[in-house]
Amino acid sequence: MAEPKENLQMEKIVSLCKRRGFIFQSSEIYGGINGFWDYGPLGAELKRNVKELWWNAMTRQRDDVAGLEATIIMSPEIWKASGHVDTFSDPMVDCKTCQGRFRADQTADIPCPQKPSKCVSECDGEKTAPRAFNLMFQTYVGPVQDNSAIAYLRPETAQAIFAQFKNVLETSRQKVPFGIGQIGKAFRNEVTPRNFTFRSREFEQMELEFFIKPDEAIEAIHGSVVTVPATGHPGEPQPNWGWQAWHQYWVEERVRFYEGIGLSRETLGFHRQAPEELAHYARACVDILFKFPFSKRDQNGELKGEELEGIAARSDFDLSQHQRFSGKPMSVFDEELRTAWNKLPKEKQDDLWRRYYENRKKYLTKMAKPDETPEQIQQLATDDANALAKGSYIPHVIEPSAGVDRLILALIANGYSETTKTDDKGKSETLYVMKFHPRVAPIKAGILPLLKNKPDLVKKALEIRDRLRPWVNVYYDEGGSIGKRYARQDEAGTPFCVTVDFDTLGEKPELLDTVTLRYRDDGRQERMKISELRDFLLSKTR
Amino acid sequence: MAEPKENLQMEKIVSLCKRRGFIFQSSEIYGGINGFWDYGPLGAELKRNVKELWWNAMTRQRDDVAGLEATIIMSPEIWKASGHVDTFSDPMVDCKTCQGRFRADQTADIPCPQKPSKCVSECDGEKTAPRAFNLMFQTYVGPVQDNSAIAYLRPETAQAIFAQFKNVLETSRQKVPFGIGQIGKAFRNEVTPRNFTFRSREFEQMELEFFIKPDEAIEAIHGSVVTVPATGHPGEPQPNWGWQAWHQYWVEERVRFYEGIGLSRETLGFHRQAPEELAHYARACVDILFKFPFSKRDQNGELKGEELEGIAARSDFDLSQHQRFSGKPMSVFDEELRTAWNKLPKEKQDDLWRRYYENRKKYLTKMAKPDETPEQIQQLATDDANALAKGSYIPHVIEPSAGVDRLILALIANGYSETTKTDDKGKSETLYVMKFHPRVAPIKAGILPLLKNKPDLVKKALEIRDRLRPWVNVYYDEGGSIGKRYARQDEAGTPFCVTVDFDTLGEKPELLDTVTLRYRDDGRQERMKISELRDFLLSKTR
Repeated sequence: MAEPKENLQMEKIVSLCKRRGFIFQSSEIYGGINGFWDYGPLGAELKRNVKELWWNAMTRQRDDVAGLEATIIMSPEIWKASGHVDTFSDPMVDCKTCQGRFRADQTADIPCPQKPSKCVSECDGEKTAPRAFNLMFQTYVGPVQDNSAIAYLRPETAQAIFAQFKNVLETSRQKVPFGIGQIGKAFRNEVTPRNFTFRSREFEQMELEFFIKPDEAIEAIHGSVVTVPATGHPGEPQPNWGWQAWHQYWVEERVRFYEGIGLSRETLGFHRQAPEELAHYARACVDILFKFPFSKRDQNGELKGEELEGIAARSDFDLSQHQRFSGKPMSVFDEELRTAWNKLPKEKQDDLWRRYYENRKKYLTKMAKPDETPEQIQQLATDDANALAKGSYIPHVIEPSAGVDRLILALIANGYSETTKTDDKGKSETLYVMKFHPRVAPIKAGILPLLKNKPDLVKKALEIRDRLRPWVNVYYDEGGSIGKRYARQDEAGTPFCVTVDFDTLGEKPELLDTVTLRYRDDGRQERMKISELRDFLLSKTR
Repeated sequence: MAEPKENLQMEKIVSLCKRRGFIFQSSEIYGGINGFWDYGPLGAELKRNVKELWWNAMTRQRDDVAGLEATIIMSPEIWKASGHVDTFSDPMVDCKTCQGRFRADQTADIPCPQKPSKCVSECDGEKTAPRAFNLMFQTYVGPVQDNSAIAYLRPETAQAIFAQFKNVLETSRQKVPFGIGQIGKAFRNEVTPRNFTFRSREFEQMELEFFIKPDEAIEAIHGSVVTVPATGHPGEPQPNWGWQAWHQYWVEERVRFYEGIGLSRETLGFHRQAPEELAHYARACVDILFKFPFSKRDQNGELKGEELEGIAARSDFDLSQHQRFSGKPMSVFDEELRTAWNKLPKEKQDDLWRRYYENRKKYLTKMAKPDETPEQIQQLATDDANALAKGSYIPHVIEPSAGVDRLILALIANGYSETTKTDDKGKSETLYVMKFHPRVAPIKAGILPLLKNKPDLVKKALEIRDRLRPWVNVYYDEGGSIGKRYARQDEAGTPFCVTVDFDTLGEKPELLDTVTLRYRDDGRQERMKISELRDFLLSKTR
């Protein structure tokens, strides 16, 4: 359990989110709906900025990634291939006394509705044996509600990328290695949504599936697979990178992304999954964590952090599964590999053939259909290894998968700061500042005339607003004292305020057409020419 | 039915969408899923641009609109209040012979599965009486699937705005008149999805709910409600505008938006709904149509067009319904109204009181709960009119509601052009150009070195790519002849190409650091300094 101090910290953050319009409970006027949250005006801007920055960094700024926007409801066959229909579930028990349904692994935490002094596991109501409860939301498509019409709300965006892999490859002029990125909603019918927006039932993901050649192909083409240091950024992608170098690269790229929007390395944690934690198909997975106030502490009293993003090396599992379930080939042909293979000495060919065969056999055995015999599986693996020798393979995947809502909560928790000031008369006041990085801040600049009742000041301030508005999100405010308006922008996390005063109008002739530029984080003020504002704000916020 | 020529036109558009990666069938490798479509790399960019332009125009560029991003699954009470649970349905009949289920109003169009030569209405299988089939997708939230856990995928984004009206009002410092804008997915379990992406089951909306004072309040404050000409833009919003002026304003603002992204007035149609077409709560509705190839023709042979957006004057119906169903007050207090009301002569007060009373009584009678008596309704209407006299009212709403996917399809249909060229040897070739407005074009500029095998040209072109990429989406391409690369960009709808040639490197010294800028639509070429490219592209694409 988190410390009381940290509970208080979260309470304050939740309260500010509501008060300033970052996050509201969904359907609040109807008593809310557990696990669903809406973003108010400031939250919606914050979220748009984060998604736009991800999309820019991951697709537009790179030649080797294409974008995709797929539907939330897809063919249910996709979730059979991915394994979600069979295994994406929590174990649940029913209490025969109170009729409640609970997660079997959480009965020690949940109070019994009939005997609140006890938790569910202690109450004497008889429990059913645990049963699997699938976490996918289910619905029916079309007018007839029968089994053939069952469909699911996607529990992750990734599978659409695998299902459209061939279409994207064929229309985008990309070649392996390349990636497909997607941002979109996903849904999980969590039994116990918790920690504000951290674990909710409707959430948004930013996922990249980056397709690479199998190591055996790299070795055939380049003689060997490069080894990279276990930590640090391995630099610009190289043709002789295998999956470990690519995995390391994406972990470090993603950390740079978080640093670039204001989450320094000290606020982050890292968790390299141990072999027993890994999903059966994964070769490695590194989680990037953020130290939330509600995070648990390790034995040294340090916050451990909660997952913002997982970067998984998923082997060729995903495309292989879709190939098996759809009957459509997911392999690519690689001219460079075919040419290189034919020039290899026989022993090298045999060695690579054997290793690739063993990997494929391992996958095919694990995922065998009930009616497949070991001989059939050996034949399939042989076919795959023979295909490799002719230049064809199913690409492997590195997957950096991030949760948008978690990141928004991390940015809010990271930016939150409060100071209490006491004036001469002993009256104290608490001031809140949301120290967002200018790139993600919902409003980039407040535009403030010093006084509301001086038409020339107002007119000039409105001119500046109109001049800046096509380029950055600005907020015009003329209500209340200038100190109050600064405080209002501080709470909204606006990094800069532009104040129009009498010097702007030329009271001091040398200051004509300059404004006061105020920095949110230290209250520092400087004079800037109106003509320089746009480029200043663009340089700080992009 | 559309003409064969127009069917052919649609076929060509669908084919180009697939071939160039604008739109794919969802789950295609599994045989697809009817009514669901994915956006490929170019389509995803096109869609992002359109949504970003709407968001900018409707929220960031205005002081009087705030943004919202609400969940797709909300409390089911919202859909009871809005009327969707009771009335959002199509009449369906079952055929007792073939067991098929069909829309009762479309049996004349649909072939009978058992007797394909006949349509359903002609086949001799006995039909059930029509039954209401609700178009909302239904699911269960939480671990227990009973009636209390039923929830719906939202069939429109609008209701979330009404449900969060008070939260936004209280946190955003907005005052009526003001609006709340939202972009997001919506779902309708259409019985017959059709016309490519035009009518699909999962789609995206861009909706603004603009809240205004009731006309009686305007009259109390300003003496009268201004009348505006029935056509044309009424200009900057004025305090004495009633609902008709605001409605007219938003119709014209929305037309300007479409013109600004390349849909000229001639490509659009307008349909002012007749009184008998209007939803029972609406006072007026204007549909903005686009003339698709599949649109029907009127008696003069002119394409009539299909709805892109409806701009409805919805009275105070929505907030009133949520007030009644949630028990939470949706009225706002207006100091200006209270002050003005107290200064009115008694007869004027009585006149406004009576008219407001009659309007409220009309609404309350129509939407009465089963157990409400006429006396109770009169009392409620009296309370409302008394509240008006003290400065309180439930805001009225103007709603411009647009479909993203329809707009994307309109932009694609509008931009599509083909020309067939025949060379000296009689060999003919068809060239496709997607004439997107630069603001929506997926790629803003192609960056092309004249030759791939000249490192200096390639290096310079990559420098230009890196210089422009932080500002606009560019595409670097070195593969194939320059003509082939131009043609490729034409098909993608890229408005400009930048070619790096030997003059760029200084072969003609006076042309050092200039490039060839080629215009997509007329093939015109001009010389431009590299240092001017960024501002040129920004000015054309924003």
